[in-house]
Amino acid sequence: MQISQPALPASPQGAAAPPDIGAIRATAAALADAARAETLRHFRRRDLPADNKAGAGFDPVTEADRSAERIMREILARQRPDDAILGEEYGLRQGRSGLTWVLDPVDGTRSFMCGAPTWGVLIGVTDARGPIYGLIDQPWTGERFEGGAGLARLSAPQGDSPLAVRRNRPLAEATLLTTYPDLGTAPETAAFGRLSAQVRLTRYGLDCYAYALLALGQVDLVVEAGLRPHDIVAPIAVIRAAGGIVTDWQGGPAHHGGQVIAAATPALHRAALALLAG
Amino acid sequence: MQISQPALPASPQGAAAPPDIGAIRATAAALADAARAETLRHFRRRDLPADNKAGAGFDPVTEADRSAERIMREILARQRPDDAILGEEYGLRQGRSGLTWVLDPVDGTRSFMCGAPTWGVLIGVTDARGPIYGLIDQPWTGERFEGGAGLARLSAPQGDSPLAVRRNRPLAEATLLTTYPDLGTAPETAAFGRLSAQVRLTRYGLDCYAYALLALGQVDLVVEAGLRPHDIVAPIAVIRAAGGIVTDWQGGPAHHGGQVIAAATPALHRAALALLAG
Repeated sequence: MQISQPALPASPQGAAAPPDIGAIRATAAALADAARAETLRHFRRRDLPADNKAGAGFDPVTEADRSAERIMREILARQRPDDAILGEEYGLRQGRSGLTWVLDPVDGTRSFMCGAPTWGVLIGVTDARGPIYGLIDQPWTGERFEGGAGLARLSAPQGDSPLAVRRNRPLAEATLLTTYPDLGTAPETAAFGRLSAQVRLTRYGLDCYAYALLALGQVDLVVEAGLRPHDIVAPIAVIRAAGGIVTDWQGGPAHHGGQVIAAATPALHRAALALLAG
Repeated sequence: MQISQPALPASPQGAAAPPDIGAIRATAAALADAARAETLRHFRRRDLPADNKAGAGFDPVTEADRSAERIMREILARQRPDDAILGEEYGLRQGRSGLTWVLDPVDGTRSFMCGAPTWGVLIGVTDARGPIYGLIDQPWTGERFEGGAGLARLSAPQGDSPLAVRRNRPLAEATLLTTYPDLGTAPETAAFGRLSAQVRLTRYGLDCYAYALLALGQVDLVVEAGLRPHDIVAPIAVIRAAGGIVTDWQGGPAHHGGQVIAAATPALHRAALALLAG
């Protein structure tokens, strides 16, 4: 399922000076700190309420999701009033700076509902050309993956470390991650199956943590379908900063969502695209 | 695939006084502390070496796995010389006390290889009738789930809490976990599919963490196949202590491995067994 609404806003032409990445990082850290505290307040609470916003199927929206996005929007309204916001829960707020904050307060709501620690908070920033900064926060483990403007690092209770994809691993030795075994339409699932059959190891269920592990040099490929911008803008910036590649399944830009492939190396990316194409 | 060798040893008849659970807990904590330090020394190391002990397929054995088991065996040799040991990597050491320590130094080696934080260290103790004590340690998150002899608790950096399964959730509202979408033979996978079709949410990939989340009251069912004793002895003790049920798919004892179902309530257990039976 490819969802294209709400899309990222078009940016004003010829807008603005180059963004101040230091200021962006400071605001992103404030957002992530606030979202971490708010989501952890709800995590593993007994009898967590869940709505069903999709009607058919199961798409839980927790109070954590909504309240964390509200808190992030309040911070942005104060610190970055000219920037646009595109959030999972509350949609688009137009801006005039040419920058858009793309927010997913709980990526992996199903993991969150299970009490599993692999959900995360996604905070991305785009300009007219696409993602320029991304942050993947793991509230439960305390890990924060950050990338953009020459920076690529993991901050964790166990210590900080640079982010860098791993190299020189052939497809037959690669590890492939995705979230759902049935990752989309039947043709999408079949395409994934062709790729999965050629790699050494396929694992499921990690949501945004999958992209973080690719940036950390632990896995080689992440393939998903049916993504929305808030699912992928932050991971794109983090993975690119770590030296990896993220595109759609045709090799084009991925920040509008849909079918996404992230690869550690150009060789793996080419090989995987060919298998996905059939 | 159901592997029954090496099996748990038969216990001597009429042996021994009732086990000293305090002494067992102290030794288990020493084992878990040592295994945590040893496995973390290897976790996310770049270019982690992996053997392929299964020949066909992919069954990584890491240095972490072997060295953590060696260290645990050394501690047991000093502290519990009369007890038997059954470990994933080094098999069975006979004992004469009637107690057996059942060790899985890295349950979830594939998660470990991906850098994902959902693997764990499993330490269980059986007597003639089955599991009497279990510990599930999560070295990366610092969580330790422990159950047996009236004790059922989680110790975590965020604080300690009792373990208790959740109640009163009908099958249609239940969350079901397993590790692999293709969990065993074709009939086993089909049986799982019948159950999965009746629950609200199915998630994959959590290894022993799945059993811990059931004991924590976050999920309702865990179903797997092809387990070995070291995969399930510790989870059985933890889940029973938290008020849950663990059997094989016929409702019999599960501590020898094979097909395993863990359920939060008798009603869910009955409903799931019926669906698994076809």
